[in-house]
Amino acid sequence: MNQALVIRGGTVVNADREQTADLLCVDGRIVALGADAAAQAPAGAQTLDASGQYILPGGIDPHTHMQLPFMGTVTADDFFTGTAAGLAGGTTSIIDFVIPDPQEPPMAAYRKWRGWAEKSAADYGFHVAITWWSEQVHADMGQLVQEEGVNSFKHFMAYKNAIMCDDETLVNSFQRALELGAMPTVHAENGELVYRLQQDVAKKGITGPEGHPLARPPLVEAEAAQRAIAIAEVLGVPIYVVHVSCQEAADAIARARARGQRVYGEVLAGHLLIDDSVYRDPDFARAAAHVMSPPFRPKAHQEALWRGLQSGQLQTTATDHCVFCAAQKAMGQKNFAHIPNGTGGVEERMAVIWDAGVNSGRLTPSEFVAITSANAARLFNIYPRKGFIGAGADADLVLWDPEGTKTISAKTQHSKGDFNIFEGRSVRGIAAHTVSQGRVVYANGELRAEPGRGRYIARPAFGANFQALQKRARHLAPAAVAR
Amino acid sequence: MNQALVIRGGTVVNADREQTADLLCVDGRIVALGADAAAQAPAGAQTLDASGQYILPGGIDPHTHMQLPFMGTVTADDFFTGTAAGLAGGTTSIIDFVIPDPQEPPMAAYRKWRGWAEKSAADYGFHVAITWWSEQVHADMGQLVQEEGVNSFKHFMAYKNAIMCDDETLVNSFQRALELGAMPTVHAENGELVYRLQQDVAKKGITGPEGHPLARPPLVEAEAAQRAIAIAEVLGVPIYVVHVSCQEAADAIARARARGQRVYGEVLAGHLLIDDSVYRDPDFARAAAHVMSPPFRPKAHQEALWRGLQSGQLQTTATDHCVFCAAQKAMGQKNFAHIPNGTGGVEERMAVIWDAGVNSGRLTPSEFVAITSANAARLFNIYPRKGFIGAGADADLVLWDPEGTKTISAKTQHSKGDFNIFEGRSVRGIAAHTVSQGRVVYANGELRAEPGRGRYIARPAFGANFQALQKRARHLAPAAVAR
Amino acid sequence: MNQALVIRGGTVVNADREQTADLLCVDGRIVALGADAAAQAPAGAQTLDASGQYILPGGIDPHTHMQLPFMGTVTADDFFTGTAAGLAGGTTSIIDFVIPDPQEPPMAAYRKWRGWAEKSAADYGFHVAITWWSEQVHADMGQLVQEEGVNSFKHFMAYKNAIMCDDETLVNSFQRALELGAMPTVHAENGELVYRLQQDVAKKGITGPEGHPLARPPLVEAEAAQRAIAIAEVLGVPIYVVHVSCQEAADAIARARARGQRVYGEVLAGHLLIDDSVYRDPDFARAAAHVMSPPFRPKAHQEALWRGLQSGQLQTTATDHCVFCAAQKAMGQKNFAHIPNGTGGVEERMAVIWDAGVNSGRLTPSEFVAITSANAARLFNIYPRKGFIGAGADADLVLWDPEGTKTISAKTQHSKGDFNIFEGRSVRGIAAHTVSQGRVVYANGELRAEPGRGRYIARPAFGANFQALQKRARHLAPAAVAR
Amino acid sequence: MNQALVIRGGTVVNADREQTADLLCVDGRIVALGADAAAQAPAGAQTLDASGQYILPGGIDPHTHMQLPFMGTVTADDFFTGTAAGLAGGTTSIIDFVIPDPQEPPMAAYRKWRGWAEKSAADYGFHVAITWWSEQVHADMGQLVQEEGVNSFKHFMAYKNAIMCDDETLVNSFQRALELGAMPTVHAENGELVYRLQQDVAKKGITGPEGHPLARPPLVEAEAAQRAIAIAEVLGVPIYVVHVSCQEAADAIARARARGQRVYGEVLAGHLLIDDSVYRDPDFARAAAHVMSPPFRPKAHQEALWRGLQSGQLQTTATDHCVFCAAQKAMGQKNFAHIPNGTGGVEERMAVIWDAGVNSGRLTPSEFVAITSANAARLFNIYPRKGFIGAGADADLVLWDPEGTKTISAKTQHSKGDFNIFEGRSVRGIAAHTVSQGRVVYANGELRAEPGRGRYIARPAFGANFQALQKRARHLAPAAVAR
Repeated sequence: MNQALVIRGGTVVNADREQTADLLCVDGRIVALGADAAAQAPAGAQTLDASGQYILPGGIDPHTHMQLPFMGTVTADDFFTGTAAGLAGGTTSIIDFVIPDPQEPPMAAYRKWRGWAEKSAADYGFHVAITWWSEQVHADMGQLVQEEGVNSFKHFMAYKNAIMCDDETLVNSFQRALELGAMPTVHAENGELVYRLQQDVAKKGITGPEGHPLARPPLVEAEAAQRAIAIAEVLGVPIYVVHVSCQEAADAIARARARGQRVYGEVLAGHLLIDDSVYRDPDFARAAAHVMSPPFRPKAHQEALWRGLQSGQLQTTATDHCVFCAAQKAMGQKNFAHIPNGTGGVEERMAVIWDAGVNSGRLTPSEFVAITSANAARLFNIYPRKGFIGAGADADLVLWDPEGTKTISAKTQHSKGDFNIFEGRSVRGIAAHTVSQGRVVYANGELRAEPGRGRYIARPAFGANFQALQKRARHLAPAAVAR
Repeated sequence: MNQALVIRGGTVVNADREQTADLLCVDGRIVALGADAAAQAPAGAQTLDASGQYILPGGIDPHTHMQLPFMGTVTADDFFTGTAAGLAGGTTSIIDFVIPDPQEPPMAAYRKWRGWAEKSAADYGFHVAITWWSEQVHADMGQLVQEEGVNSFKHFMAYKNAIMCDDETLVNSFQRALELGAMPTVHAENGELVYRLQQDVAKKGITGPEGHPLARPPLVEAEAAQRAIAIAEVLGVPIYVVHVSCQEAADAIARARARGQRVYGEVLAGHLLIDDSVYRDPDFARAAAHVMSPPFRPKAHQEALWRGLQSGQLQTTATDHCVFCAAQKAMGQKNFAHIPNGTGGVEERMAVIWDAGVNSGRLTPSEFVAITSANAARLFNIYPRKGFIGAGADADLVLWDPEGTKTISAKTQHSKGDFNIFEGRSVRGIAAHTVSQGRVVYANGELRAEPGRGRYIARPAFGANFQALQKRARHLAPAAVAR
Repeated sequence: MNQALVIRGGTVVNADREQTADLLCVDGRIVALGADAAAQAPAGAQTLDASGQYILPGGIDPHTHMQLPFMGTVTADDFFTGTAAGLAGGTTSIIDFVIPDPQEPPMAAYRKWRGWAEKSAADYGFHVAITWWSEQVHADMGQLVQEEGVNSFKHFMAYKNAIMCDDETLVNSFQRALELGAMPTVHAENGELVYRLQQDVAKKGITGPEGHPLARPPLVEAEAAQRAIAIAEVLGVPIYVVHVSCQEAADAIARARARGQRVYGEVLAGHLLIDDSVYRDPDFARAAAHVMSPPFRPKAHQEALWRGLQSGQLQTTATDHCVFCAAQKAMGQKNFAHIPNGTGGVEERMAVIWDAGVNSGRLTPSEFVAITSANAARLFNIYPRKGFIGAGADADLVLWDPEGTKTISAKTQHSKGDFNIFEGRSVRGIAAHTVSQGRVVYANGELRAEPGRGRYIARPAFGANFQALQKRARHLAPAAVAR
Repeated sequence: MNQALVIRGGTVVNADREQTADLLCVDGRIVALGADAAAQAPAGAQTLDASGQYILPGGIDPHTHMQLPFMGTVTADDFFTGTAAGLAGGTTSIIDFVIPDPQEPPMAAYRKWRGWAEKSAADYGFHVAITWWSEQVHADMGQLVQEEGVNSFKHFMAYKNAIMCDDETLVNSFQRALELGAMPTVHAENGELVYRLQQDVAKKGITGPEGHPLARPPLVEAEAAQRAIAIAEVLGVPIYVVHVSCQEAADAIARARARGQRVYGEVLAGHLLIDDSVYRDPDFARAAAHVMSPPFRPKAHQEALWRGLQSGQLQTTATDHCVFCAAQKAMGQKNFAHIPNGTGGVEERMAVIWDAGVNSGRLTPSEFVAITSANAARLFNIYPRKGFIGAGADADLVLWDPEGTKTISAKTQHSKGDFNIFEGRSVRGIAAHTVSQGRVVYANGELRAEPGRGRYIARPAFGANFQALQKRARHLAPAAVAR
């Protein structure tokens, strides 16, 4: 390449401030920011006019499942269509998940996912799930961190008889992550209780999607969150809780942070805006289309999640984009427990959160940047390359039109799914242009995504500050006792 | 029998009030209370003068291990010496534990313990531990509740590779307890973390008793308490947490109670008064003599426990009386993890709690009665037979001299142990006379305990009020969805 | 008198237990309870059959305003009609309020109220409000406690430019109450904020009753509750917060109790069941009829209040019965701030709380007794004369039919008000017979109240246990410093 | 000027990241940062070698009282000596306080202070205290914000009969601050309780400094903090609580933040490290030298403050530098209440917090920057001019030597006081060079401060994001009621 792009007249928003400044991007990076940025542009540079618009770091969605294999089929969005949908909504990076089967070596699964992801239209990285434990897993974790740029590992505390981790695996894997300078993350639901409740609900004759939230009440999530947080604290390792959906789990995180622990929480756009009444939709397809875990919650929980983001106790937003079509959802026609779990949102996240968060006065634009990109970049150690607008950073940007509006619909979405959980919602504040690696990939409705343009982003291990925390695991402090 | 006992001139204290009244006991029961009680006494009745004294319900210690088999030996106090020591301190009932080995049918273990307990000097009952799960265990739980007067089951969340319950067993057993109208109880420590920390501490070269608290920090307890409470809430069953030792676990109980859940917490006399500096005693024997689990905690936790008792968020006090002698403790000379866990206290509990609790203005005498007998009687369904002074109740009483003093010492204790964790502590407020089944069994220093005088107290299953709670497990409420 | 009444076959419920027992009442007192109670009855004793019914202590409503003078008129219920209405609903005692004008000596006001109350049909007592401060007030407080049987003083933190106390008065009065062994109570709303918000709401053009809750949001209450609690804690005096209406205030009480402070909270039946949508009723009269302070709250607060009662963090229930008719409410037609504050409920409290609390599984019958009579009796030091069923207690009883039903309506109520905030609510569980001083005063719909039958109940000052708390005000502990 | 300064080889630390970079400063501003910064330097530029050192934004102390008039005398440090001492410790800006006497117009006081401050050696700004209320005060607040660059107002809730604000003044001033886009701040102690407790302590015969903390227990602070926070929330204005010293006040802030409120808390270096045992020092002078309000607290509170900083619930650190000499402190020889309140620290803050915070693993270097400069700059709206290292920012910098050590002592301090509350404390991590406005003003022990070099920093009013919060004061939302 050697492309140059000038963006003029916008308000540049970083997590720490807003400023009016022009931007110059060359060869995929931001090279200048300020009054004289345009003057430094090489001849032939493309220019975008951002007057009246905010320029935000491109969104980072740290929780997606593109092309996820599932019972002989795969999710509707592959790495190309999924990342392309993200670009249309202002999201320029994703962190997806490698999920080994039990007994499958993590490296083997990782290689498989790397292959699938080559067609991505936007930059991407991977969390790797630890679904079992052995010397092989221990070794592969080392290789992933030291050679492959993986700095986070995922642990499912639900899905009994499948990928659920027991406490022994959690302890082993968290300890290993600490040694390696990698962040453990958890899907927090007590799988034993879910298993029991699914049976109990079935015994009551409830077979439809309305049974889904009954089998996964908030305490089932809070219990697991508390357990994982306690294990992390005892071992002296930071921890990141994915898709915090309820007040009780958010409270568990806040309590741990109040004792000084390094705990982080992620919120999905869906949990901020959709409540559990969807599961009582008389239309099975619509109800089933909302089945994901943790489920959408009674409305009061949304307030708790917003407050967590406002107060800084929850740090990131994501989507858990994992799209199954109606035919796939129909596998659970007779038993809600068999409905494939997952919903979309990678394209809508930025707009729905801006609309509900910034327009309402809950969040400032800087805070919006923090929760949609900067914090994720910092927590997964790709900041300030990502999540930041300044010289040297990747030119992943959104020109955000705070007065632009649209009405969300499956009919107009770029995702290959056949449903949209935000269907019919009108938002004010949308991506006008999206810039990825310095290229305009979305412009006022026109998507210019190209397969294979996305790059794998290696994320380095955490350094001394991460390890320093263990200093503070004082319960292990050797006591000076002469005997 | 047909003995009569008149107690004159004392201040009768119940959990709800104090009153000046005479008492008449006949045939082991209280038959009259009030100004004319003495007048109703049959000829030849014995009379005690209680002027200047309080008359309290005899203490109930709901957590003891008399005659506990351990690695080919047994604890120092058998059911006679242990209950006799209790009588000397004003405790007239204990609830001990039947602990089946994994794979041992609970009924078989129960019968064994019933035999051992026949020599008791005071009334007794049993909690039965659930240490594994099978159809047999399920059936035995039913028999124990319906035929044997057991209404509580204990679950150890610690002691990996031994009697530790996993979540699956907890869920099964709690559910069964609910059906039967029995109270599940838990020893709350995350056994997986203890196991790991014991190894970590050992790796740091710490082999002495100072390693014991390092391997069992407060969060290890709090995690387990929270998990058990969450499981109970999800299933809709009340729960009782034994030996709450730290602020974090007390907070977990308080939070659950604040959501309306029926959760109860027990505090040991030792945890209220002894801190973790004892483990750093340069004398191995003294340090090892304090090894019990959960361990004694840094001083600030004591305040949290007292506050829990004052506010009613914690309900009972106990001792976990489980006495190993120096020779037994020496089994862990080279590795603290092998020191047999246990300390005494059944004789001292009433006095040390009165001294530190009532004399300080923390607790009123009525509140003292609540936490030393009445609440335990209510929670284990033997109230008002026990824990209450009124016509019809068992004549289990203490004449409590608020000005009496003593200095506690192993040299003068009645327990067969060779150590006293309260050694040297002077207390004001002691049992002057203890009355069990209407008999004076302790009088101003003279112990008149007799083997076999104690009776097994069958505790009936809980009734409709207990089951009604499940009504409120609303997450299982069938949703009305027409499809 | 020398009347005798036998009640056979019922389930007697006290705060600590239920038992099946017959009762004998003679000369206004309970004289026997048990299987042989009937046998002891004198010839000619009246007998009530209580089979299938609960026998509860008569309700105590610790918060009423009968015959309250207000701007030249008075509330609709005088001491006869108000207490008679209470009897019809199972409430046999009230504690009303003497409210001196600023500058009026408390003793003078007290005498006035004593005169008005002579026509009461049921037993009664008085809290006396401290609305200003002087040596006279200080002296009168002493006389009220020591000679007149007043053991509680009320402080309004709202109503600026009228009866609002500033911090200086609170400090003086709380300190005096402690010396005297009397309980300070507070109406917790920050009057300065209410004053400002009333103006702000008016500036927005809101003049109707919908403005009432806008001017008194939950934080206005929580702030005052916290302030009063902090003052009490610093001075070492217990405190009772009347009509706790919101989560934030309930939390403030719970937090204080968790530090071991003696803080008590009262909940009104209305706040448990009615939400703030009533203020948006398009009919002015209906909306205005609900105006009281603190206002009814959004629905989620009700859950917090119920949980406080379930967990024992809130102790009593009351009504703040203070009935203004439509013509009086119309004084605020043009400005909601001029609507006389007050609603009824003395007749309905027991039934609506039973229905919503016991039938739902939230509360056991014993817990119902605790929050409707026993706790109030204990906190205002008339226990066990009131709030208890046992030999020696006043024969104030309700035969409670758990299967009886009624639909509440202003048309059928005994109160002289023209409105009922529970209009149309159907309840299951009602008073079948009410017994006051051993007389049947209400029988299956027939009210036999008689003016003047009610007695003034002198409430003694609190004793040593109350004062002992000050021991613990350790911040005043003299430090041993040699200089 | 036209000075140029190059700083090579250091690790530049901002609140969001660390990076290795050279810096070029010209004319008092940073003009370049990065590998080629040195290359851009004009000829003759001075160069500092920062290898092995961190380059931090110069410290901002947002809470000092230089040259404070007090009873006919003034504090020991004037604006020159005080700011010079700051420079020696790496603090390059202060925000001091204008404190009008009651009845004195704020503008008049402001002009007086501006005059005194002209001799400052470092940049400075002013908070203005609101100590009474009138139309004049209302008008002067407007002038201060709109013409004088004051964007924060201070309110003393203590000091009865002097500068204490009542609730009416708080409400008026907070409301005015919101209109103007200025931040209200509070000194949170309930002055009424302090007044009462001072008398109570005196009555107990305690006249020495040990009485000081007895008269100002934690709840006295927590009450006021809660009250101010509640008032701010009701009015919809952000609030900043100065010198949070205890767990209870920190908790009040955390609770408010958890409901989404914009509340900020400041911690003094002294409260983080010194406990209340100092008041029991047998030497009056030493004890009195520690008298400040709120007082130093029992040790456990320090942990709470550190945790608040770690979790982001408390944002800034300061000193309340206000130095009285022994002769001045002696005014309270006979009555602790007359000891002038104040201690120093402006020179030591950075080093003691680094040593206790970063070396211990509590805080990362970036977090250290956040709490010592960046957050204060953001909260008082001078970011990124101050508190940030990047092109365009003021060249206020510290070259921080993480391995440098010193032992703090009054003998070697630059402050004119005769005492140092950190006396004898050894720290690792100190300022090696301090740069103010691009000039090296402190170099390895040599202080080059010059009177009058400091500039008044006008702080602009807050803009739309600040005001937007009021949108969320939903209790004022007009309800749509048709009548």
